[in-house]
Amino acid sequence: MLVQLKFPLKTLQQISSKRFNSSSLNPTIKNQLSNPPPIGSIIEARGFVKSIRSSKKVGFVDITDGSISNNLNIVLQGSDQPKFKVGQSIVVKGDWCAGKGKQPFELKYNPENPQHTFTILGDVTDDYPLQKKATSMSFLRNFPEIKHRTSTLGSFLRLRSHLEFKLMEFFQSQDFIKVTPPLITSSDCEGAGEVFKIEPLNDNDPKEPFFGKNAYLTVSTQLHLECLALALNRAWTLTPCFRAENSKTTRHLSEFWMLEAEISHVVDVDQVTTFTENMIRFVTKSLVESSNDTDLNNLGAGNGNDYLIGTYIEKDVVQSRWSNILSAERWPRMTYTEAIGYLNKILPQDEKLTWGDSLQLKHERLLAEKSPIFITDYPETQKPFYMLKSANYNLEKPTVACFDLLVPEFGELAGGSMREHDYEVLLANMKQDNMNIEDIEWYLNLRKQGTIPHGGFGLGFERLITYLAGYDNVRDISAFPRAPELCNC
Amino acid sequence: MLVQLKFPLKTLQQISSKRFNSSSLNPTIKNQLSNPPPIGSIIEARGFVKSIRSSKKVGFVDITDGSISNNLNIVLQGSDQPKFKVGQSIVVKGDWCAGKGKQPFELKYNPENPQHTFTILGDVTDDYPLQKKATSMSFLRNFPEIKHRTSTLGSFLRLRSHLEFKLMEFFQSQDFIKVTPPLITSSDCEGAGEVFKIEPLNDNDPKEPFFGKNAYLTVSTQLHLECLALALNRAWTLTPCFRAENSKTTRHLSEFWMLEAEISHVVDVDQVTTFTENMIRFVTKSLVESSNDTDLNNLGAGNGNDYLIGTYIEKDVVQSRWSNILSAERWPRMTYTEAIGYLNKILPQDEKLTWGDSLQLKHERLLAEKSPIFITDYPETQKPFYMLKSANYNLEKPTVACFDLLVPEFGELAGGSMREHDYEVLLANMKQDNMNIEDIEWYLNLRKQGTIPHGGFGLGFERLITYLAGYDNVRDISAFPRAPELCNC
Repeated sequence: MLVQLKFPLKTLQQISSKRFNSSSLNPTIKNQLSNPPPIGSIIEARGFVKSIRSSKKVGFVDITDGSISNNLNIVLQGSDQPKFKVGQSIVVKGDWCAGKGKQPFELKYNPENPQHTFTILGDVTDDYPLQKKATSMSFLRNFPEIKHRTSTLGSFLRLRSHLEFKLMEFFQSQDFIKVTPPLITSSDCEGAGEVFKIEPLNDNDPKEPFFGKNAYLTVSTQLHLECLALALNRAWTLTPCFRAENSKTTRHLSEFWMLEAEISHVVDVDQVTTFTENMIRFVTKSLVESSNDTDLNNLGAGNGNDYLIGTYIEKDVVQSRWSNILSAERWPRMTYTEAIGYLNKILPQDEKLTWGDSLQLKHERLLAEKSPIFITDYPETQKPFYMLKSANYNLEKPTVACFDLLVPEFGELAGGSMREHDYEVLLANMKQDNMNIEDIEWYLNLRKQGTIPHGGFGLGFERLITYLAGYDNVRDISAFPRAPELCNC
Repeated sequence: MLVQLKFPLKTLQQISSKRFNSSSLNPTIKNQLSNPPPIGSIIEARGFVKSIRSSKKVGFVDITDGSISNNLNIVLQGSDQPKFKVGQSIVVKGDWCAGKGKQPFELKYNPENPQHTFTILGDVTDDYPLQKKATSMSFLRNFPEIKHRTSTLGSFLRLRSHLEFKLMEFFQSQDFIKVTPPLITSSDCEGAGEVFKIEPLNDNDPKEPFFGKNAYLTVSTQLHLECLALALNRAWTLTPCFRAENSKTTRHLSEFWMLEAEISHVVDVDQVTTFTENMIRFVTKSLVESSNDTDLNNLGAGNGNDYLIGTYIEKDVVQSRWSNILSAERWPRMTYTEAIGYLNKILPQDEKLTWGDSLQLKHERLLAEKSPIFITDYPETQKPFYMLKSANYNLEKPTVACFDLLVPEFGELAGGSMREHDYEVLLANMKQDNMNIEDIEWYLNLRKQGTIPHGGFGLGFERLITYLAGYDNVRDISAFPRAPELCNC
């Protein structure tokens, strides 16, 4: 029982402690560079030592705090310069000055000025691994707790954050509601067996499952997302998904984030491809705009762009990917059937394809050699039960209204479809696939009560970031990647 | 091997299909109400039938599509009115007119006008459960796939989406990087055994764990987040967390979303409480601003607010919670020690507390009776190993620099602390707790290489939404709640 005692709020506020006065946060280097204090003022800067150059009369220390890709240059004046080591976290108090060369500002520290001070907040051991010399990505993977202090991995994280913010803006502008479908699910219908099952570590009674039934980690939130999209007209999510696939490629993770969107009242897969294209163009354009130089010929890595700076990012690759995405022309669309015909014109005689064959990576690369491309209307047998049949469906070459988005050098970036919205047809599809109808009756039920034509798509978020970063390995885009035999902290 | 064949991009674009012309999405009701078409134009509106009133000469059908809390009123003219049923999804084409009464617009359908049409996209069964009559929340929980079409549950989802967007804006403005720490982890140090373990469903060799070691679902991403916050200065995440607790309360879920933030270069827990207060004030203010009427006396449910409309939301409760948060005065701070003293002044003789006792829910309610309050500096023995000792630490009453945020009627909303940043002290704490040092060496290592004073906090996102919605049960705030014996789809 709650003891009901009344007391005036004032009393409580008088008692409450007022010890602390300084409540604001110390400025980040990003803040100091973008809202610079007046030249000549004495300020404190905080960061890790990135590099050190010194001579008898002057020393240069670059520090970074990861809030922005730029370093802040500290000039150590005079002969009695403090000794720093790469990797130390330090605070230096000195004069805020106009910079020389490329740097707009620098901090001057003079040991003879009594107002100037420095503190080493955190020292490093002699074997501190992130030295100035370039180290390989595979070397860095041995230090998951500190590797993000390097320029490239910091860039990837800032890029990810930026993209998420811009995606939020985009979907908000399109009247989408952001939702969080469940990660724990009792249906493994989409996983094809490659799912993780979950159980309490301390299971008092293993015969009684914790959730009342077997529980798995979701491989895609689409089915639940459809429930929410029908209720809210348009719904999207950026959500973890899990696959227990035993594959160790540069494109797969056991834990990854998936952008999924479902849209009510679309009737044609072209509406979904157009939406997907608009979305990717929007976020890519925002990257160009965040570069100091918006000329497409000068965009990308190391060019004043807040996001992409680092040894491992090749400017050429970034440039070609971004400009392909932002091409003046709408990205091409081609049906699977057209793609087979096209490929058979250019493939050698002994590699010709038959209608119904799966497109392999080498075929996808041929189709997306110069531009992103949507391949639509794949054979029904290659795709899951929930896809709507194509508008020109025929029994000879039965296809579904779906698409894969292929991008140059990379392959599949996104996939989507119209969803079957008719109860009887969906039920027939499920029976044909020998699915357990009872397990997934809730999903079927959506088609019984006020069904709506709808469609949607999914996009691997780490893949998008990898692609836009001009990079090739999702394992370095995930902050703490999880894959077979990889869960080191 | 990739077959290297060159072909001009033009060829590919000529082949690509150009069948589809209509690519834009149909407007949502939100769009139609906020960017209304010219009065007198003929438009199509789409949505679910919410309610029907009809007489001989005129009928009224309210439709909603969930994009906004408002319904769109359709006026059916003449005697030959179409017959609709509650729950059907329909498209009606008619005249866009100025509305009568509260509604700014309405759609007039006249069966005698050949340009006016209607379509029933999706019928309902006779036992369609979401009838106009108020149904209990526990009844709605039986229909997880369609229950979100109700006003209240739709409101909760729109509120969640809005809050996430505003949080993103807030953290962006404060130079935070949004990150995604891992959900699969090999350390269960924080879980106190109440964690889920995960394994592939089809495990070829159960002796060889899939990840090379035992893997669990995270209960808090804090430890990994600290790595990223030291690298990036400030990092935050909105992330799923999991607890295998066998509790069936209105405040606990087995799967929930947690907002966590870590901040480098803070030195005092008051900086963290102030940041937390600013954040909650920011998002609450954005809700008031989204109301048509920004007068605090008129805010909240059913008052033109885009987010909160529904039978289950009590305007009084919303109003008192929001105005408590937005009080002109800074929320009070009180140390645990002060709180014990304060409570002992007002508690009956037989319920007095001794220093070191845990604060129970009834004590928390007394402390937060009229205003949110931060209780800081709890006894060291009540808190985890990673917390920094209080500035005025003493061996007689040893405390740590931490806080719980308590809010009226509800209890704990957030908790945080300064983190121990000294290697030797942290190591000693861990040894005292008999922790396996090897498992968590990566975390210790952060203190070896360029350590930085830092602090942070965590806030249960469903709790925040529940509180701001004037509601009391997190199970209806999660779209598909997971709890013991609850995983029904």
